[in-house]
Amino acid sequence: MKKIDEKCINTVRLLSADAVQKANSGHPGMPMGAATMAFALWTGHMNYDPSDPEWIARDRFVLSCGHGSMLLYSMLYLTGYDLTLEDIKNFRQLDSKTPGHPEYHLTPGVETTTGPLGQGFANGVGFAIAQKYLSARYNKPDFEILDYKIYAIVSDGDLMEGISSEAASLAGHLKLGNLICLYDDNHISIEGNTEITFTEDTAKRFEAFGWQVIIVSDGNDHDKISEAIRLAESETGKPSIIKVRTHIAFGSPNKADTAAAHGSPLGEEELKLTKINLGFDPDKSFYVPDEALEVYRAAGDRGKNKKKEWDKLFSNYKQKYPDESKELLSLLKGEFKNGWEKAFPVFKAEDGQTATRAASGKTLNAIAEFFPQMIGGSADLEPSNDTFLKKYTDFQPGSYDGRNLHFGVREHAMGAALNGITLTHPMIAYGGTFLIFSEYMRAPIRLAAIMGIRPVYVFTHDSIALGEDGTTHQPVEQLISLRSIPNLTVIRPADANETSQAWKTALEIKTGPVALILTRQKLPVIDQTKFAPAENLGKGAYVLSDCKGDPSLIIIATGSEVHLALEVQTELEKEKIFSRVISMPSWELFEKQSDEYKEKILSAKIRNRVSIEAGSPLGWRKYTGDNGLIIGINEYGKSAPAEILMKEYGFDKDIIKEKIKNSFHF
Amino acid sequence: MKKIDEKCINTVRLLSADAVQKANSGHPGMPMGAATMAFALWTGHMNYDPSDPEWIARDRFVLSCGHGSMLLYSMLYLTGYDLTLEDIKNFRQLDSKTPGHPEYHLTPGVETTTGPLGQGFANGVGFAIAQKYLSARYNKPDFEILDYKIYAIVSDGDLMEGISSEAASLAGHLKLGNLICLYDDNHISIEGNTEITFTEDTAKRFEAFGWQVIIVSDGNDHDKISEAIRLAESETGKPSIIKVRTHIAFGSPNKADTAAAHGSPLGEEELKLTKINLGFDPDKSFYVPDEALEVYRAAGDRGKNKKKEWDKLFSNYKQKYPDESKELLSLLKGEFKNGWEKAFPVFKAEDGQTATRAASGKTLNAIAEFFPQMIGGSADLEPSNDTFLKKYTDFQPGSYDGRNLHFGVREHAMGAALNGITLTHPMIAYGGTFLIFSEYMRAPIRLAAIMGIRPVYVFTHDSIALGEDGTTHQPVEQLISLRSIPNLTVIRPADANETSQAWKTALEIKTGPVALILTRQKLPVIDQTKFAPAENLGKGAYVLSDCKGDPSLIIIATGSEVHLALEVQTELEKEKIFSRVISMPSWELFEKQSDEYKEKILSAKIRNRVSIEAGSPLGWRKYTGDNGLIIGINEYGKSAPAEILMKEYGFDKDIIKEKIKNSFHF
Repeated sequence: MKKIDEKCINTVRLLSADAVQKANSGHPGMPMGAATMAFALWTGHMNYDPSDPEWIARDRFVLSCGHGSMLLYSMLYLTGYDLTLEDIKNFRQLDSKTPGHPEYHLTPGVETTTGPLGQGFANGVGFAIAQKYLSARYNKPDFEILDYKIYAIVSDGDLMEGISSEAASLAGHLKLGNLICLYDDNHISIEGNTEITFTEDTAKRFEAFGWQVIIVSDGNDHDKISEAIRLAESETGKPSIIKVRTHIAFGSPNKADTAAAHGSPLGEEELKLTKINLGFDPDKSFYVPDEALEVYRAAGDRGKNKKKEWDKLFSNYKQKYPDESKELLSLLKGEFKNGWEKAFPVFKAEDGQTATRAASGKTLNAIAEFFPQMIGGSADLEPSNDTFLKKYTDFQPGSYDGRNLHFGVREHAMGAALNGITLTHPMIAYGGTFLIFSEYMRAPIRLAAIMGIRPVYVFTHDSIALGEDGTTHQPVEQLISLRSIPNLTVIRPADANETSQAWKTALEIKTGPVALILTRQKLPVIDQTKFAPAENLGKGAYVLSDCKGDPSLIIIATGSEVHLALEVQTELEKEKIFSRVISMPSWELFEKQSDEYKEKILSAKIRNRVSIEAGSPLGWRKYTGDNGLIIGINEYGKSAPAEILMKEYGFDKDIIKEKIKNSFHF
Repeated sequence: MKKIDEKCINTVRLLSADAVQKANSGHPGMPMGAATMAFALWTGHMNYDPSDPEWIARDRFVLSCGHGSMLLYSMLYLTGYDLTLEDIKNFRQLDSKTPGHPEYHLTPGVETTTGPLGQGFANGVGFAIAQKYLSARYNKPDFEILDYKIYAIVSDGDLMEGISSEAASLAGHLKLGNLICLYDDNHISIEGNTEITFTEDTAKRFEAFGWQVIIVSDGNDHDKISEAIRLAESETGKPSIIKVRTHIAFGSPNKADTAAAHGSPLGEEELKLTKINLGFDPDKSFYVPDEALEVYRAAGDRGKNKKKEWDKLFSNYKQKYPDESKELLSLLKGEFKNGWEKAFPVFKAEDGQTATRAASGKTLNAIAEFFPQMIGGSADLEPSNDTFLKKYTDFQPGSYDGRNLHFGVREHAMGAALNGITLTHPMIAYGGTFLIFSEYMRAPIRLAAIMGIRPVYVFTHDSIALGEDGTTHQPVEQLISLRSIPNLTVIRPADANETSQAWKTALEIKTGPVALILTRQKLPVIDQTKFAPAENLGKGAYVLSDCKGDPSLIIIATGSEVHLALEVQTELEKEKIFSRVISMPSWELFEKQSDEYKEKILSAKIRNRVSIEAGSPLGWRKYTGDNGLIIGINEYGKSAPAEILMKEYGFDKDIIKEKIKNSFHF
């Protein structure tokens, strides 16, 4: 290796170790072991413009093992992103741009928030899907305007997580030749040598998944790593993984190759010894040799020039392909196609009963042409989730312009892939499964919410009313546990029209994910000539049906139980008990309304309140108040036909009427 | 194939199809495709006694693709378990013994509840771990009293789920030669042919995991299947998977090999055609030819005889190994070793601050010798979770009597393996990870709660107070989302003594899982000479520190925030505001107390109440009431040192004191 390259690489090692030492917290070992890989990528392979981190044709970089964040921060600072040495010195401090794990939006150049292992790897598959789709749609002969690649560094931990197998199998199937992973094979995890639990043949596993596997036996051999990356880049028919034998905390005389260097500072003494060992001054901290900085900045400058060349290309593209470029630029601004608002279907009561999952499918198909940036699918439940776009083909090798994704029975990878897709502007992505299996994809949902990105989840079969599939398939606590995720909007529409409006609202929410909670069973379409219109859905809760004068009871319901609430209202009216029915499809949307609006819906003086929802009662006390009655399910479901089951669990107008009469004085 | 064998197999096919048809709901295709495999297992390989489904040396059978439940019910009925033809006719009806997916406890012979894909496969790995441990502990030369195997039938869907890769990698590493999986390779999933998304080389993947892979190209070739099972049985050094090419809905002239046969009845007409095609009378339903029943019952009888032989063996074992047999029999009765209650450590305030994770580690080590049936470990976070039993070795090939499991970075498989272990009486198992990564194992936690089995989860790093690791690692909504799971007991102890008691309580709860929620940060040990003793923990909530006379405020806190509550109490007292501090480690335990007890703690007349918990405010309204103040976190955390962060989010005695004074009139 050239001396200067070695100095550049050691600079990263020591910047990382210094930052961790100063913070007295963090993970020095990974950046020290993987510095040569990063150096190779950032100085020899990736196309990026430090002055324009949003350049749409940039290569994407994912640090799946987010705990090695100092590796990424070092590269961003050194190559000239808007990140200073001061920022690096503030590693892991309050409101710094250099948090413990890389966070999207917080640091320029960070493409995705990583930390929970395996997520970044699967995000990478999503990024790769998005690139394939966008390039299939917008690239033209001689105008490969979106011809970029996705690079990732992944760790043992990433590959142990099941999500990486799901995502790798999908990527292999889809022949995502634009995806290149470097596997930081350092043989060390937190409990010690990976020999204690991870002895599988990872190379063979990835071959089985249909990947090109390249082995580099020396993680410090810059030339070999670079050659391997070139080989990966030239294989466009399948994803590549480069297994690089590295040494955690390389350079540290006493802590290299030990678990001790994984998650703790090296210690002042060992850090000095490391500096000496790597030929640096032991008394200097955060030291960046001028000649090293020059190398990195030159790489950054080459990137800037690439971007300038691309600007020229795109300028010509605009002239030659005005429609395509106009569409792309408009979508990138976050605009929707003209007429989109009017595309949402309106359902009539007389057209008969419709499951909200079916209404969702009809809505999706009605709006699809207005949203060319939207692709999606299901984790092998498309016929049940109603997620298929009938006018469009499948996204498959050979038809990357297809808009229907088949994720397979891989909910977790689906969730993370949706994140990778929606992190790629201007993409919007949706994914469906049964509500109960949202449990398999909690981590990526949470990460979408943290990042403020906008996948839409189509969760159907939303209560015990799914019937015979029984206990294991019947959601009970899933609504509350999704509602508990900050910045996730949960919408459980009551009928077909609320469902149509729910999609509209979902597409308007650009700063966080939305979960649509839909029924398997058919429901009446609420007559909009008699009741309040579904356009109110965006407010989260609204008066669907009021009585004359002050009601003596408020009935709050969501989703399929809104119909039951209306029936109960009618029954009570017969006994001169006058009530107000609130449809409350979304707690989160309601919470965003003004106090005045809230008071209009849940008038403080009306203390007789009942909530009806076929799910956990947890959390409803807030809306029913101390005096209220919460009708929910606080146990598991059973296997039986839906109607029998609903009655068994008390979701019956007569049972509820009696409960109400026993609970309140009218 | 022999004519009679064919008849036996077709009987299962048609029983399954008839049951689904009658229920007008269910999955006929899988049982019809896999009937030959099941026939081979139940008549030629597995050891079981239909009259004693709890026989400890029985082979375990797991139907990982639980939607094929009729396959299992058919075998249980035919071989003579306590399941009648009437039960089969009640398939998927309310409170029947034949629910949509197999449920543990509900049906004799069902070893685990399956349905969510991949779970059964990973349960199987847990069963295999338990068998290895128990046999290492109790088998003796010439007394292989626990020499049984684990058989599973798994589907495409199971193998697509990431959990199966995690579990398979672990099983391969652990060389679990007692585990034999038959892979129902029918090429069909719900969205169509598996070619659309699942084109990996599964055989190669399993070889990479260190498994023996056997291919059977014809799923109707009984001899070949049986030969393959024998080969698997003879390989004791590694787990085996037999990939059997089957045909979904085999026998159905128009629906075989189609997704249409996966999750819907064949239809009356097609069912008749199928019966004709298989040589059965089209007008007979639920028909079991006498000669077929005879074959199955004879197999059941052979099993009964095996059990009788085993009884003799065990009788001799009891004589030769009185200590071992006595211990085993006592444990099987659910008894604990003498002196266990006194083993729980007591911590003194003067011994200094202790993180509750550390107290948990000390407790585990103190009690381990009293619980030989307890094994456990962590998903590669053992040094952080404090789960290591210092006096015991690792559970590894060659040391299956070791009690320390290394799950690797595989939380999901850990959760499901814990289920398999604890389903094996008399085993108790625990598993640790960071609280945030409970998100990766939601599905198996829920299944443990459904089944009423008793894994213990050691979830450490329980709030933003974990500090610098930042947003991705900081739990916020995890407490409420765990509390929402019915039959899961969540305990968040306030200090070392509550932690010791939490373990005691966890071991006393035998009918459901328990999650211990523990701190990373050190906490004072509450002085038990000044405050109420930690023995009260079992009641879920108790008055830790009361004032004289009626308090004008109740402060409720959990875990690390209890110390803050005590400080706030002291501060308020200086201003003549007298309050009561409630330590509330467990909502679920508190809910089980009498109304009288609850009233003593949360006196109805005291409406000034504040809750303090460094987590989502959701659900607290129930305890604080309409008038109450909830101090929680309704956003994501940040990366910064713990103390700075806690103050940033308002967890500071002065900030809280002011909030209280602004919220209430005293």
